[in-house]
Amino acid sequence: MTATTHAVPTTRTPDDAALPDSATLRRYRRTADYLAAAMIYLRGNHLLREPLRREHLKPRLLGHWGTCPGITYLYSGLNRLVRRTGQRTLLVTGPGHGAPAVHANLWLEGTHQDHDPALSRDGRGLARLVDGFSWPGGFPSHLSPEVPGVIHEGGELGYALSTAFGAAMDNPDLLVACLVGDGEAETGPTAASWHGSKYLDPVTGGVVLPVLHRNGYKISSPTVFGTMDDEEVIAYLAGAGWSPLLVDVESTDDPDALLSATLDRAHEEITAVQTSYRQGSATPSRPVWPMIVLRSPKGWGAPEHDVDGTPLAGTFHAHQVPLDDVHDDPAQLRLLERWLRSYRPEELFDEAGRPRSDVVSVPPSGELRLGSVPEANGGRLLRPLPLPPVEEHAVDVPEPGGATVGATPVLGSWLADLVRRTEASRDFRVVCPDELVSNKLGAILDVTDRAYTWPVDEYAEHLGRGGRVLEVLSEHLCQGWLEGYLLTGRHGLFPCYEAFASIVDSMVNQYAKFLKMSAEVPWREPVASLNYLLTSEGWRQEHNGYSHQGPGFINNLLTKKASVSRVHLPPDANTLLVTMRRCLETRDRINLVVAGKQPGPQWLDLPAAERHCRAGAGVWEWACHDGNGAANPAEPDVVLACAGNIPTTEVLAAAWLLRRQAPDLRVRVVNVVDLLSLSPRDRHPHGMSDTDFTRCFGTDVPVVFGFHGYPSAVHDVLHGRGVSDRVHVHGYLEEGTTTTPFDLLVSNRMSRYDLAADAVTRATGWSSAGGELAESLAGDRDRLRRYAYREGADAPEFTEWRWSA
Amino acid sequence: MTATTHAVPTTRTPDDAALPDSATLRRYRRTADYLAAAMIYLRGNHLLREPLRREHLKPRLLGHWGTCPGITYLYSGLNRLVRRTGQRTLLVTGPGHGAPAVHANLWLEGTHQDHDPALSRDGRGLARLVDGFSWPGGFPSHLSPEVPGVIHEGGELGYALSTAFGAAMDNPDLLVACLVGDGEAETGPTAASWHGSKYLDPVTGGVVLPVLHRNGYKISSPTVFGTMDDEEVIAYLAGAGWSPLLVDVESTDDPDALLSATLDRAHEEITAVQTSYRQGSATPSRPVWPMIVLRSPKGWGAPEHDVDGTPLAGTFHAHQVPLDDVHDDPAQLRLLERWLRSYRPEELFDEAGRPRSDVVSVPPSGELRLGSVPEANGGRLLRPLPLPPVEEHAVDVPEPGGATVGATPVLGSWLADLVRRTEASRDFRVVCPDELVSNKLGAILDVTDRAYTWPVDEYAEHLGRGGRVLEVLSEHLCQGWLEGYLLTGRHGLFPCYEAFASIVDSMVNQYAKFLKMSAEVPWREPVASLNYLLTSEGWRQEHNGYSHQGPGFINNLLTKKASVSRVHLPPDANTLLVTMRRCLETRDRINLVVAGKQPGPQWLDLPAAERHCRAGAGVWEWACHDGNGAANPAEPDVVLACAGNIPTTEVLAAAWLLRRQAPDLRVRVVNVVDLLSLSPRDRHPHGMSDTDFTRCFGTDVPVVFGFHGYPSAVHDVLHGRGVSDRVHVHGYLEEGTTTTPFDLLVSNRMSRYDLAADAVTRATGWSSAGGELAESLAGDRDRLRRYAYREGADAPEFTEWRWSA
Repeated sequence: MTATTHAVPTTRTPDDAALPDSATLRRYRRTADYLAAAMIYLRGNHLLREPLRREHLKPRLLGHWGTCPGITYLYSGLNRLVRRTGQRTLLVTGPGHGAPAVHANLWLEGTHQDHDPALSRDGRGLARLVDGFSWPGGFPSHLSPEVPGVIHEGGELGYALSTAFGAAMDNPDLLVACLVGDGEAETGPTAASWHGSKYLDPVTGGVVLPVLHRNGYKISSPTVFGTMDDEEVIAYLAGAGWSPLLVDVESTDDPDALLSATLDRAHEEITAVQTSYRQGSATPSRPVWPMIVLRSPKGWGAPEHDVDGTPLAGTFHAHQVPLDDVHDDPAQLRLLERWLRSYRPEELFDEAGRPRSDVVSVPPSGELRLGSVPEANGGRLLRPLPLPPVEEHAVDVPEPGGATVGATPVLGSWLADLVRRTEASRDFRVVCPDELVSNKLGAILDVTDRAYTWPVDEYAEHLGRGGRVLEVLSEHLCQGWLEGYLLTGRHGLFPCYEAFASIVDSMVNQYAKFLKMSAEVPWREPVASLNYLLTSEGWRQEHNGYSHQGPGFINNLLTKKASVSRVHLPPDANTLLVTMRRCLETRDRINLVVAGKQPGPQWLDLPAAERHCRAGAGVWEWACHDGNGAANPAEPDVVLACAGNIPTTEVLAAAWLLRRQAPDLRVRVVNVVDLLSLSPRDRHPHGMSDTDFTRCFGTDVPVVFGFHGYPSAVHDVLHGRGVSDRVHVHGYLEEGTTTTPFDLLVSNRMSRYDLAADAVTRATGWSSAGGELAESLAGDRDRLRRYAYREGADAPEFTEWRWSA
Repeated sequence: MTATTHAVPTTRTPDDAALPDSATLRRYRRTADYLAAAMIYLRGNHLLREPLRREHLKPRLLGHWGTCPGITYLYSGLNRLVRRTGQRTLLVTGPGHGAPAVHANLWLEGTHQDHDPALSRDGRGLARLVDGFSWPGGFPSHLSPEVPGVIHEGGELGYALSTAFGAAMDNPDLLVACLVGDGEAETGPTAASWHGSKYLDPVTGGVVLPVLHRNGYKISSPTVFGTMDDEEVIAYLAGAGWSPLLVDVESTDDPDALLSATLDRAHEEITAVQTSYRQGSATPSRPVWPMIVLRSPKGWGAPEHDVDGTPLAGTFHAHQVPLDDVHDDPAQLRLLERWLRSYRPEELFDEAGRPRSDVVSVPPSGELRLGSVPEANGGRLLRPLPLPPVEEHAVDVPEPGGATVGATPVLGSWLADLVRRTEASRDFRVVCPDELVSNKLGAILDVTDRAYTWPVDEYAEHLGRGGRVLEVLSEHLCQGWLEGYLLTGRHGLFPCYEAFASIVDSMVNQYAKFLKMSAEVPWREPVASLNYLLTSEGWRQEHNGYSHQGPGFINNLLTKKASVSRVHLPPDANTLLVTMRRCLETRDRINLVVAGKQPGPQWLDLPAAERHCRAGAGVWEWACHDGNGAANPAEPDVVLACAGNIPTTEVLAAAWLLRRQAPDLRVRVVNVVDLLSLSPRDRHPHGMSDTDFTRCFGTDVPVVFGFHGYPSAVHDVLHGRGVSDRVHVHGYLEEGTTTTPFDLLVSNRMSRYDLAADAVTRATGWSSAGGELAESLAGDRDRLRRYAYREGADAPEFTEWRWSA
């Protein structure tokens, strides 16, 4: 792909006003540090206008002081850099418990006031800010969607750096500074993230400036990166592809000048890399970007020692609240007062509680403020995708079962079309940990490359700097990149082997929380949904074994808020197309789509697929049988229900078997494409009406349900329908390993024979008559199973079966 | 802690026989490579005694050739090293899809035959091996518990290296070689694992020899480590603390000599480090161990090009099955035959199909064989723990509610005792991602240190090389280390913040599979259970916000096989002690224990706790109320049930409120400590009998259930009891963030007032009378809630409430 030409980074407008000098920056930091400490401790006497007393203290002291001064140090340095260069900059803060520092800076730069006039830059706003931190109904103790400028809450550590990379992609004018705590740096996801620059195109993308904050300690131990010497840290990061710049605040009398100079140098190096790539001349073999290794004492500025002599600043004792017995220990209270007064608040705020004008002039203005950069509220920038018409890609299905294709290859061609239509806007990406080709979405690679910036040998195919596919063998990176990309106002899709989606369970948990809270924040605009396409499902894991079987991602998503989670199981290609189109139109959701990649029977033509997906679930009349050969019995003996592509095939085959072997049995066939449509409407907005539910599942008829995943997921969504005792779910039972598809189904009692046998056994009025037939079906099943053991392949009766009415 | 003195590593018995030379090693590899290829393709004509025809091929071609030759290369080199040095060696193979290579080596060394005489080292055994690979009922396509020598299945990538470290800990005479694929190296968990040597004590532990296998490609793309140049790779690994040795098979005419020399050198370096630490003289500042960076072409030995000219060996096209159209393309079939014949099988096997004697003499013998090392079947080495009597640690509970302590601190003192009792055996470890102190298990640190080998500053506390606590801010590392430790025959505990246990959801999924399969393998001995202690639960997350709320780990575990998973929710300290003692006695389970760390009311004295835990659930008669003030009503109006420490307190407070405000209401109180006891016995072995279940929950009385986690978990375990419509579960609803404990309960409708109001509303015959009371209870609740918003703390009515009969 030829990348669109991008301007070399020379067109930005620097701030005309004089840049803050070190003394001003120091004063700025004193102000912010004081405010952060005040947020942790105070609920009155906010500016220490009177002696500090017990009743001025919050009853519960929350927030982590340890990381706050470092956050403000970086924030102030970035303020100056943005002022100097006009560089649009987003800050991703990994140590989210340092929220007090972020709030202090947001207040000083006026972003807080813009979002909530009550947080005015005067004594009243200050009091509200300080009192409201970590207070019921106020701001939480760590970063969260309620905080402007934040796209990463940083409560569960590990994902700041990958989020930063996602934000920078396809944002050529953006610099994403990312503060990574040395605790967070121990996590696997962060460790993997250092390789992110190998995926970030210097031409079409912006840049990530990581700042590894080595303050040495976590809650009660040294950090790994704190114990490595400088040489080791530099080698490690240089090996990962960076040009590390060291900043040690204790190495100088003027830490502000040191940081300013280092940030200036970093920005120059960044500009040099961008220029070389964007001008297309003298392009280096790989983009080696600068990063900063920042060493500052833990809790920098806190007292050296507690009243009992315990060391505080520079040790793990300063990680959370350095003085935590201030309510009961008057000596500690006095020490706290001395500490707070060491910032000399009386010099920093005027009578009305307004911060000094030189301090408030430190940050840039308008949308250049770190908390006001538009990308941090990505919904503001979001444009709907130019979704291709599905008609051009739909499969011709002359009659149910009348075509055989793989669903994901069909989707792949539609997605390729979408990638083509977004070539100029570059606001849609696909992340994939186990490679698109393996998920049979390779058509996308005909229209874009896999992004990669490091040199590759001549055997690599479809790799290029500007590619919009991100393949890396790390689900964590895929998830983090996509989160950063979506939250900055773009769109994306995450195809994944089904069994391995659980690798990001906890990231999804956190992201679901982010979306839930975002919806409660009035100024947050909705973002594009996070869309998963789980394929390479356990029922057809082919090359793989037991480790590749695991549909539990569905169960995890079902624990999320109903406002956030959606689960779709399109049974064929046309329903997959319609489902995915809908997912890409939605906002603020986590949409899970499970679909097959292997060739399989197609059931619905496009109009039928549209109707079916709109309803979420419905009776497939053509597959029903009233016992006289006609369709759609008013009162069936049994309902055969299904959700998921493989179970749908098995259920239809079971209905087919029953039509032939039990022609008197009245069978209704129901397919569920939107799993949450099964829930009562008061539990989930997608829930079917009671009328529609009864139309599908009757009032007291047994239901034999073939389900793609664990049976518990169906019982979960059905809860409240009052049907759990008559719905008998067949699903994945954690059985089987490398074997044939049929044998795998039998191992989990999900084969057509098992379903048919269960149906006749349970059918109303058939329990005795059904016994003999059930036995004969079991016999057929076992015969076919033996075939597989003998031949290493499935019997033609299984592989060549076709639906016929 | 003073470490036990360990012998310096000079006492091993090398093999007397002559060591294999390069020519023999090459022949050995030819044999194993041939066998591996045969396993992928053949079901007959195993030694090519006749021309290769279509009917000799497996119908489905499974297994990944790409990594096989590299595995055998390392295996053969290690064989020689073990022969030369007598060094007991375990091999952990990350690229599990290279199973054919491992099988070939196991067959050649005779381990296969030892476990299954049908896999004899002759033509018959060879045929069985080749035919049975990736065949229904045979060996799966990747490594799994069915394969001797394997403690890591390697299907889901990322955990080989952490597993290897766990295996090496407290195994001073063991070398754990660990092959890490360059695909796997992209994962976060592997990236974090490189720091493992900072936790491995050279005195009490063995050593891990990582071999990073750079063969350059994954399924269809270059790997990240494949695209880094040697300088980058060396810097990265050296920065992480290693001394990397390069082996490039294409840099020499004699790759076997190169590997032999490199392994010899690595072993010398290892011995030097061990000696320096174990003799205690001239101890270096940190143990820098050797590791190997191995470069070999992908699919080494496969044809250079496919019939259409597509390059194969050395490219991603050789990753899986290089020639995959052999059934239908006669030219490809001829190419396959040429490839297989290139190994000259006629020179490698005699008439009877026996491999050459010089080849079978390459591996060491007995338990020194890589597949026969006893640690790989850890249950063989397992000794029961000397569990301390709980009596010495139990809390004195004169009457229900008559004591207030934190549960985990009590457990901590018992665990400290256990750590002391295992000081010599060193077969119990605690892994913890968020630090023991924070989980209030700090007593353990009075008797052992946190393990750490890198230099730390003077402010670090409780750190030491020989420590048996492993703290690292990576749940993945904790899990991997513990898995390796348990599977090699030791014991352990994994305390974790509740919300962050989901970080290892997928690792637990894989481990549950490993346990399930192990139980089906006759020669695998049971290992100690994997025990989780989830604390810092969402209901009392204190310093933290919404991100720290998440009880979903329970739901994930409930999807596992009933033979494997257990979920315990001890409501107080004594039940926690009894539960944990039981967990540490069990084998082959995943035991989840959820407990509180904050001071809370104690309900049961030790004898009552013993009885209660044995039953799993039961009526708490002292809390019941028959409407006349007496206990244990035969026919209550409502059952108040609870599981989990916070819900138990709320439910008892609700019962207390009702006793006062609705003295006529007949209330039964049931506590559930073993969640699976709720399941029908045919669904879970811990399920209560129907009689016991009815004794607790009646036959048609409404049940209001206060549950620690998501309500869906209770409905899930109750499935099949036929009670879902009358059990009304209050649990975590994904609401609330940084606030007071009471407000968090109210946000999730779990406060005592919500429970009591729900109880009176639903109580049999009370639905009208209950309305007014419910309203008054809601009023009280809202008043207390307003208090919290005003004061930033909970009202005394909540914090000072005590149970009284």
